[in-house]
Amino acid sequence: MTEFELIARLTPHLPLTDAVIQGAGDDCAVLAAPAPGQELLLKTDAIVEGIHFLPETDPERIGRKALARCLSDIAAMGGTPTAALVTLALPAAPQVERIEGIYRGLRRLAEAHGVAVVGGETTTNPGRLLISVTLLGTVPAGRAVLRQGSRVGDAIFVSGELGGSIHGHHLDFEPRLAEGRWLAETGCVHAMIDVSDGVAGDLPHLLGAGSATLGAELLKSAIPIRRAAREAARAGDTAKPPVVAALTDGEDFELLFTVAARDAVPVLDGWKARFPGVALSCIGRVVDRPGLWLRGEDGLRPMIGKGYEHFR
Amino acid sequence: MTEFELIARLTPHLPLTDAVIQGAGDDCAVLAAPAPGQELLLKTDAIVEGIHFLPETDPERIGRKALARCLSDIAAMGGTPTAALVTLALPAAPQVERIEGIYRGLRRLAEAHGVAVVGGETTTNPGRLLISVTLLGTVPAGRAVLRQGSRVGDAIFVSGELGGSIHGHHLDFEPRLAEGRWLAETGCVHAMIDVSDGVAGDLPHLLGAGSATLGAELLKSAIPIRRAAREAARAGDTAKPPVVAALTDGEDFELLFTVAARDAVPVLDGWKARFPGVALSCIGRVVDRPGLWLRGEDGLRPMIGKGYEHFR
Repeated sequence: MTEFELIARLTPHLPLTDAVIQGAGDDCAVLAAPAPGQELLLKTDAIVEGIHFLPETDPERIGRKALARCLSDIAAMGGTPTAALVTLALPAAPQVERIEGIYRGLRRLAEAHGVAVVGGETTTNPGRLLISVTLLGTVPAGRAVLRQGSRVGDAIFVSGELGGSIHGHHLDFEPRLAEGRWLAETGCVHAMIDVSDGVAGDLPHLLGAGSATLGAELLKSAIPIRRAAREAARAGDTAKPPVVAALTDGEDFELLFTVAARDAVPVLDGWKARFPGVALSCIGRVVDRPGLWLRGEDGLRPMIGKGYEHFR
Repeated sequence: MTEFELIARLTPHLPLTDAVIQGAGDDCAVLAAPAPGQELLLKTDAIVEGIHFLPETDPERIGRKALARCLSDIAAMGGTPTAALVTLALPAAPQVERIEGIYRGLRRLAEAHGVAVVGGETTTNPGRLLISVTLLGTVPAGRAVLRQGSRVGDAIFVSGELGGSIHGHHLDFEPRLAEGRWLAETGCVHAMIDVSDGVAGDLPHLLGAGSATLGAELLKSAIPIRRAAREAARAGDTAKPPVVAALTDGEDFELLFTVAARDAVPVLDGWKARFPGVALSCIGRVVDRPGLWLRGEDGLRPMIGKGYEHFR
């Protein structure tokens, strides 16, 4: 089967929407402009065999993850995803069933979120499978929630639970799209990011990376620890205590954001009413002392450890 | 140097435009909606070390090529590129100077065409460098030139020269953006594609791939052969006669399009007046007999050979 035959076999099954004027199969996709009053969001993200998934990982979960990571970034802006492109770099001769599985997982998640898949590319990458997804989205003009904007005294919130993602969550997480949009609509959120490198790695982005003035004080007992992180610690699978895993493990894909202290309770109440099945935790506050600080039984200590970083 | 430090070193130098509301450094880029009456174009394309460039290829030319390939696709729709995302999948420890060279080449070409670089990603790809570029563009509503639309009797045109691209053209080609826009504005073009897999590989896309009715008859003496293809044949570097190289070699990145026979001379005259430095050749016509046919001294023969195809 050639590249063209494989693509021909996959493209008739790609999800489309009313915005798609020309989908896969031409030099470019052609899409309707967004509705008046909307701006565009654009994101790309790649996952690589051996790093973000394993050769034996279920292909549907691989495809799902490739798209879900980009969806999580659109969520962190308070946006709505509209159309995706998929690049598959394949290790050798085409692995037809594996590729079809990847597309199946990707397609299902795309359909669930009203995302059209409008093309992409298939190329060779001897050695390992790589999937790169580009996602286009929209956000009401002037309402995208950026990483910059936190102020001293802000409450710091995180959705869901943290840590131990490697035990399954990194493949099956639900991008917090409805939650992100709702948060943006409240108008209360000062800054937001999706946690992909651990709270310890990503929180500094909300404090102005490298800022000489802002820091964060987290309350150890308030950190929402995922069950898998506790179980891994209990089983001796990791040397990290659960709270350290929760703060430093990668691929949580939860929303981390700051709001003014006076808005903390209304946001928490509103969230609970709107998203009863998704935890929201106030884990600390923005302080005027640089660095990340953790308050536990033994007082206030500087946080050690970083989020997951490539090349480390 | 960590991933973040490397990105921090590169992103302040990325070209921006008035349409960029938030560039690299947030979860997504935020872009202004296109002007009223415009539709969006979206394209992604990847180049891989050992396939599209070599380990010893000048990094600036690698970066240039990665973007130029996408620009060529926007050109083939008659569109205008606006913003790009760049994904670098790096073989091992960061190769700082190489990566800076890649960005330099990419940036220069982006600036030359008014394209903002609004983000992307850096990940690891043990074994080889892979660069994936996503390009957003615009086209006047309803005016994108698609691959479908050729009719029996249409004249077939190709810009520039063909064949022997491997000897340098594949790194240094000029995407035919002004030419593609001009062609779209004439309103004469029935169908257009950029030639990346050879005329023999890509022309069938303009005839409705797999169509049972349309074919093309090309005139051997009209095929514009690149000097490098002639020289390679003369030097014995290839077993392909020059005209076969011209029709089957990959990566020409020229515009291949069809117009009604009555529009052929006006289009040719208009092109010569507007683009005196770029060749335009009428190489044949669309016929109602399926297949590709080449008319030479020895009469009409079916064309043998295909364009470059992965997995072959």
